[in-house]
Amino acid sequence: MIERLRVLGIDPGSRITGFGVIDFTGDVAAFVASGAVASTEGSFADRLRIIFKSVSQIVAEYQPAVVAIESVFVNRNAGSALKLGHARSAAICATFTHDVTVVEYSPREIKQAVVGTGAATKEQIQHMVKSMLKLDGDPAPDAADALAAAICYGHQRRLRERLASRDFPVRRQ
Amino acid sequence: MIERLRVLGIDPGSRITGFGVIDFTGDVAAFVASGAVASTEGSFADRLRIIFKSVSQIVAEYQPAVVAIESVFVNRNAGSALKLGHARSAAICATFTHDVTVVEYSPREIKQAVVGTGAATKEQIQHMVKSMLKLDGDPAPDAADALAAAICYGHQRRLRERLASRDFPVRRQ
Repeated sequence: MIERLRVLGIDPGSRITGFGVIDFTGDVAAFVASGAVASTEGSFADRLRIIFKSVSQIVAEYQPAVVAIESVFVNRNAGSALKLGHARSAAICATFTHDVTVVEYSPREIKQAVVGTGAATKEQIQHMVKSMLKLDGDPAPDAADALAAAICYGHQRRLRERLASRDFPVRRQ
Repeated sequence: MIERLRVLGIDPGSRITGFGVIDFTGDVAAFVASGAVASTEGSFADRLRIIFKSVSQIVAEYQPAVVAIESVFVNRNAGSALKLGHARSAAICATFTHDVTVVEYSPREIKQAVVGTGAATKEQIQHMVKSMLKLDGDPAPDAADALAAAICYGHQRRLRERLASRDFPVRRQ
């Protein structure tokens, strides 16, 4: 029997955190849920609290085995990098009270896995996510990026399994 | 009766997080505990986990009413700012599962409160913290900075109370 593996993808941001949940069963990816959390109200600590509490709730509700999160591009502006670092860390910390594995992918790895090129546009990602998960409409950009991070995990896992089944050396994640 | 107020000061860092606990009873500040958490082992997510879990444990053990944390200087290097943002956020998020108030002070406000000048050196802070809390020896720099953040809270609270008792308008924190 092929086991179902549930993956939560997260697209971190200081104002909007996208999330997307996918169930992988062998080669089949099934959409479960997606959405975005806005953290624009209150003090900076309040905004971190919103991200932390919301992601905690999402993890508690969907019980993923794996959380796939986009690593952030080091912005030239240190002030933005500091804010984004806080926000992304709040999303990661929200998974620490649950038994989940956290994996990080660069935006390039995610684009490569979903569109086939590391230079894909946001629209291409939305389109491919919609097509791969057989969604009725385009997901919102933040939700699409989060779903793409989850798809990237599924993609790399499948590659690893195929390599392993042929006795190729498996690259450690 | 004057109530005792327990304050946890935190000096955030991506490699070392300093902490210090002080009980304030009226004008009297009593040292309770201080120390530092090293987060230098493992992946970046592992290091955030160490900070988050350790600060959670400290908050659970000492049950502070207030957490005073130094806001960070926006480094010119966006890469360091990103790392420090993650680490600082992990320390802040660790307080969210407890009923505590989080207050933030700039390094300048803390130095001003402890030494009397916003341009104080690390050695001057260590010296003043030792003297104000009647410690036997110099606290380690990270612990001293954390204790200084807690002292800053006590200092500003006393100022507010004195202003309030004279019917001055109270500046909202």
